[in-house]
Amino acid sequence: MDVDFAQWYTDIVKKAELIDYSSVKGCVILRPYGYAIWENIQKILDGMFKETGHENVAMPIFIPESLLQKEKDHVEGFAPEVAWVTHGGDEKLAERFCVRPTSETLFCDHWAHIVQSYRDLPKLYNQWCSVVRWEKTTRPFLRSREFWWQEGHTLHETSEEAVEETLRMLDIYRKLCEEYLMIPVVCGQKTEKEKFSGAEDTYTIEAMMHDGRALQSGTSHYFGDGFAKAFNIQFSGRQNKLEYPFQTSWGMSTRIIGAIIMTHGDNNGLILPPAIAPYQVVIVPIMQKKEGVLDAANSLAAELKAAGIRVKVDDSDNSPGWKFAQWEMKGVPVRIEIGPRDIQNSKCVIARRDTGEKSDASLEGIADSVKAAFKEIENTMFENALANRTEKTYVCHDMDELKKAVSENIGFYKTMWCGDQECELKLKDELDISSRCMPFEQEHIADTCPVCGRMAKKSIIWGKAY
Amino acid sequence: MDVDFAQWYTDIVKKAELIDYSSVKGCVILRPYGYAIWENIQKILDGMFKETGHENVAMPIFIPESLLQKEKDHVEGFAPEVAWVTHGGDEKLAERFCVRPTSETLFCDHWAHIVQSYRDLPKLYNQWCSVVRWEKTTRPFLRSREFWWQEGHTLHETSEEAVEETLRMLDIYRKLCEEYLMIPVVCGQKTEKEKFSGAEDTYTIEAMMHDGRALQSGTSHYFGDGFAKAFNIQFSGRQNKLEYPFQTSWGMSTRIIGAIIMTHGDNNGLILPPAIAPYQVVIVPIMQKKEGVLDAANSLAAELKAAGIRVKVDDSDNSPGWKFAQWEMKGVPVRIEIGPRDIQNSKCVIARRDTGEKSDASLEGIADSVKAAFKEIENTMFENALANRTEKTYVCHDMDELKKAVSENIGFYKTMWCGDQECELKLKDELDISSRCMPFEQEHIADTCPVCGRMAKKSIIWGKAY
Repeated sequence: MDVDFAQWYTDIVKKAELIDYSSVKGCVILRPYGYAIWENIQKILDGMFKETGHENVAMPIFIPESLLQKEKDHVEGFAPEVAWVTHGGDEKLAERFCVRPTSETLFCDHWAHIVQSYRDLPKLYNQWCSVVRWEKTTRPFLRSREFWWQEGHTLHETSEEAVEETLRMLDIYRKLCEEYLMIPVVCGQKTEKEKFSGAEDTYTIEAMMHDGRALQSGTSHYFGDGFAKAFNIQFSGRQNKLEYPFQTSWGMSTRIIGAIIMTHGDNNGLILPPAIAPYQVVIVPIMQKKEGVLDAANSLAAELKAAGIRVKVDDSDNSPGWKFAQWEMKGVPVRIEIGPRDIQNSKCVIARRDTGEKSDASLEGIADSVKAAFKEIENTMFENALANRTEKTYVCHDMDELKKAVSENIGFYKTMWCGDQECELKLKDELDISSRCMPFEQEHIADTCPVCGRMAKKSIIWGKAY
Repeated sequence: MDVDFAQWYTDIVKKAELIDYSSVKGCVILRPYGYAIWENIQKILDGMFKETGHENVAMPIFIPESLLQKEKDHVEGFAPEVAWVTHGGDEKLAERFCVRPTSETLFCDHWAHIVQSYRDLPKLYNQWCSVVRWEKTTRPFLRSREFWWQEGHTLHETSEEAVEETLRMLDIYRKLCEEYLMIPVVCGQKTEKEKFSGAEDTYTIEAMMHDGRALQSGTSHYFGDGFAKAFNIQFSGRQNKLEYPFQTSWGMSTRIIGAIIMTHGDNNGLILPPAIAPYQVVIVPIMQKKEGVLDAANSLAAELKAAGIRVKVDDSDNSPGWKFAQWEMKGVPVRIEIGPRDIQNSKCVIARRDTGEKSDASLEGIADSVKAAFKEIENTMFENALANRTEKTYVCHDMDELKKAVSENIGFYKTMWCGDQECELKLKDELDISSRCMPFEQEHIADTCPVCGRMAKKSIIWGKAY
């Protein structure tokens, strides 16, 4: 892992059976174990979306070229990387379609049909789907030609409401990362250069991976009324005048599974947060052929299951040692060992995946003990990730400090910034770092921009990104 | 509805806000109310799939042309109706891809990588996705260029196991239709002519719509080892010899929502089975501006929600009559009316969508009363659909009876059949009816085939299909 992080990552993804490569270059297969992680993430996010009043819909998979072209900045950003459908059966299409890379244009086209009055607002929509972007270089979960995601799209009467929604959804992403996936994130705003094609403002949550690189983990966009004007979406307002509505979109993708792997994993494999682990507990029977051992393992499993815990009994013919290694690779948070002597003593052994600690636990009240272990595991996982981020965050007051930090370590580089894109481009050119975000939690590091020496406007975080 | 069933159907689909047409010809948008029905169906089916040991995966959206061509019958069936991707960004692709019309070829390609030993079997996979078939004529839910579905794909050590799986999954579809959607279905086998491209046997559940037409509502296919041979999937068996595994696939799509509409709907709109209704109960407050009325409606809603019932309080400014009509159009199974006098008497009014019956119910134990109403509604819905099917099923002993039945009524025509495709084609030509299935529950109607007069082998059902 510390020798070749990239190779370690690819190995884990294959060995833990998360992904297989497909015959379509740059497209992957989510295998059952990988997909189950995604399903658990979906359940949590979908619940939070619905609690905040959002409804799911399904939009077409195709966008006619003319529709994609309606918003100038948007088409410029996406047209170079879409897949084009030119034929249906044997017939050449009159107009070619792209496979959606994102669906702003489809939502706008639909809203133009169905929104007439302020009474029809807000529209708070989301869809779960896959999208296609014809990337040149790909990596499992992090960048692939097809990926699975949710895309929220909302339409509001006022700009204030839309801005509020943009930030609300960003905070839901933060909550998912910090409270369920145990990944600390920095919330902030993207620069003009890094914002989404067609957006007025893009907000982001940025996570730091174990190797110090940054991973953009979720984004939320405020569009103002730009798309509404391009698509002629108008509604009759409270004063009975025609008005343009204000729009947002926000997305999180299977990329977040890459973040989980690279934040928490170790040399033995995956370490999964209990909230999204396909199996939260694996029970390994010891001397399983002895009478009563499998029965005890199964009734223990039934008890945990009844308490809402996702549990698997590994009663395969493999040796306990082999099973331990396999389930460690797959990152199951808690392993329970139970053998004849344990049964005699009404106890079992609980082993934590994150620390490797083993402890005896009474069979009585075992579900509570396991749940308590989950809590401790979650705390430790978050603390470790936070410690890594703290260690690899470099506050740089001037260009010399920044250059030194970048040459010595990969991490988050905090500086001030004048707000000028030239300084941003210069850092990209000279130090190969990109702006991650202007954090909501602003700091005063210095008075001036380290690049140009002019008055600074904001504190900003730079990094090397996946 | 009885004057122009097709127009009635299209009106309902739009007015109940299930679907909107999109700018992509032949592709539709599932609006929140339509998608919520699909989500509820998904939850039920997905639960039954998982209970029977199936795991979800996600396969690529694209199939390279060479992969689609590997199984001869399969490509012949699907190639004429696929959408072809020829360009990625500005580049012409070396090999074109189709957008998946179904994913047998992708699953086989993956299995060829990962299946080595009999220990790796069975593979019991499913995926939820959309697929694309370039249909010439389309109708909302029933036939569209993109539709949403699940496709199960399984691989087995023995032929017996695979056949058993094929029938098990068909029975899950039957169960969904009969026990949750209240749609009676005939289970049976498709003829050679009607089976899936590449399958050895196709099984089907066939429903009858209100107008007597048939709707194929779910299919399950047994492939033998044909695909395994074409894709060179081999495993080392229990005797340590290389063997070919046996395969199945099975699918159900958003088409089933069309079946719900056309089985249960009436002149006032949709009638939704409680199990999949987005709202199972709508509460309409009467004289809602009077003090205490909205509070009573909301606390009633909270009580129902706590009992696991999906409930909506309509506190909009519209009149009660307008609300009644709107929620009838949307097919909500139970409406509760509550006004000042009801509150005084600790009661409310329960109105059933299916029969229109209204009755008083005590506020005490209201959740149980509502659940009892659901049961009665379900029974009535199923009985009505069954009565319609019974009324429109015509047992025909000879060609004269068959011709008469077809000329007078649309429905299921039961006859004997010699098993020869020529007779099947003749009926298509002369009477414009197609074979629906050879039912598992075989009957002896006559000794001979009504078309050719030769010895009959099976009883069969013919119909006019959507």
